[in-house]
Amino acid sequence: MNYSDLVEQIFAKKSFLCVGLDTDIQKIPQFLMGEEDPIFAFNKGIIDATAEFAVAFKPNLAFYEESFAYGLMSLKKTVDYIHQKYPEILVIADAKRGDIGNTSERYAKAMFSTLKADAVTVAPYMGMDSVEPFLKYNGKWVILLALTSNKGAEDFELMEDANGEMLFEKVLKTSQQWADENKMMYVVGATQAEMLADIRKIVPNHFLLVPGVGAQGGSLEKVAEYGMNDNCGLIVNSSRGIIYADTGRYYAEAAKEEAFLLQQRMLVLLEKIDR
Amino acid sequence: MNYSDLVEQIFAKKSFLCVGLDTDIQKIPQFLMGEEDPIFAFNKGIIDATAEFAVAFKPNLAFYEESFAYGLMSLKKTVDYIHQKYPEILVIADAKRGDIGNTSERYAKAMFSTLKADAVTVAPYMGMDSVEPFLKYNGKWVILLALTSNKGAEDFELMEDANGEMLFEKVLKTSQQWADENKMMYVVGATQAEMLADIRKIVPNHFLLVPGVGAQGGSLEKVAEYGMNDNCGLIVNSSRGIIYADTGRYYAEAAKEEAFLLQQRMLVLLEKIDR
Repeated sequence: MNYSDLVEQIFAKKSFLCVGLDTDIQKIPQFLMGEEDPIFAFNKGIIDATAEFAVAFKPNLAFYEESFAYGLMSLKKTVDYIHQKYPEILVIADAKRGDIGNTSERYAKAMFSTLKADAVTVAPYMGMDSVEPFLKYNGKWVILLALTSNKGAEDFELMEDANGEMLFEKVLKTSQQWADENKMMYVVGATQAEMLADIRKIVPNHFLLVPGVGAQGGSLEKVAEYGMNDNCGLIVNSSRGIIYADTGRYYAEAAKEEAFLLQQRMLVLLEKIDR
Repeated sequence: MNYSDLVEQIFAKKSFLCVGLDTDIQKIPQFLMGEEDPIFAFNKGIIDATAEFAVAFKPNLAFYEESFAYGLMSLKKTVDYIHQKYPEILVIADAKRGDIGNTSERYAKAMFSTLKADAVTVAPYMGMDSVEPFLKYNGKWVILLALTSNKGAEDFELMEDANGEMLFEKVLKTSQQWADENKMMYVVGATQAEMLADIRKIVPNHFLLVPGVGAQGGSLEKVAEYGMNDNCGLIVNSSRGIIYADTGRYYAEAAKEEAFLLQQRMLVLLEKIDR
């Protein structure tokens, strides 16, 4: 999927919602536990219920890795299902991978060729050659960590150099030499909404993947106020707030309702863009 | 495994060698391709051949993830095999994981409870709450990325603050507030051997995991000169130089020879320590 496909989808669906598939086997409704693959069955319910309101699905690798080979099979089935049934929707493998070049090559192959994700989150600590192997795939995206939504973001991401430039700003600037907005997006936490204005000065055209709305306490309207550009430029993720809106038999209906409510707020925000 | 167990093993074996199991299905000798699980069969050969000269094995997750569920099954069998046959040897899951707290919890569970690794490499970018979940496991280790062996290390790891303190130094200092040398080690690349002297001033007692000797061009003797402490304090990894020393029928014998040669050099270096 390329940049303009994504923009088109956003304005067609009037949504920039990403549904995070952080599927926890311990939170899956009891009635699904008899299924051959409860994780996949749960995801299928969420996907079918929310697809009309979402432009992206973001499975979080950790939740699948927890049950190891079994979990990865559920994940693969989930991604295949999305591609088959909703080919317009972006699949983001939230993996936070990154290693020396010859190792990142393997991670890129795992995420793009094997899993067939459209985008993968990558950690920038090890620099250019840890990111480049992910950039070699046509029509795929790297979503680089910049400013995250957690408390620990303060430990290193906000470190300042002698000119007052912070680490996450250096990541934004340096990485633009590696790829432009057609191949790269950035993770910027919603709990840091005010900082989005400064971030937009550095990356005016890039898409920003914004987690932290909902369970982590970020505000959608603030994110839009500070972070939106003429192409929207935002993908806002909600995981727990949607997929565990209800943990009983009607979990999918509850997820749909939550996704719909977010999409309705996004519709209002998108109408402010003059196209 | 605790700190003193590790030190004891090092001086008993007269080795601080870690054998990196970066097992590439495309480099496995032809005669193993008929096995039910060629990756596991290959690893078993390497493990049995090198165990007497090694204190640690370090499977690189990317190489297993590449073939997804199948690869993770081979990895699990590999780790189980090491624990059963060589219970004194440290198993390091080289995973470079790290995410917000509730996600890092899953990665920690995957690596420590499911895979049963003794140690896992963790990326520091997202700060304390991305690392802490890995520190909650008794008798397990976090090996935090500090200064890596790749070219890209220059992009961000060497960023300096107004006082001239570099990012990797901040990582070393800040993370000491999270855990001491009984729970934490650091990754320091061998290609940066001279910098080990300064690193030792910050972390005098910690073990350092040193990749980059061999294929990446680092020198074992320089690493020891600048990085060794009274407890050795080093685990030096070689992957490709050992496991692909020969790619034919005698790959295990060739790996054994390479591991033996490295161990012999380590023996000389360890004799310089006055115990």
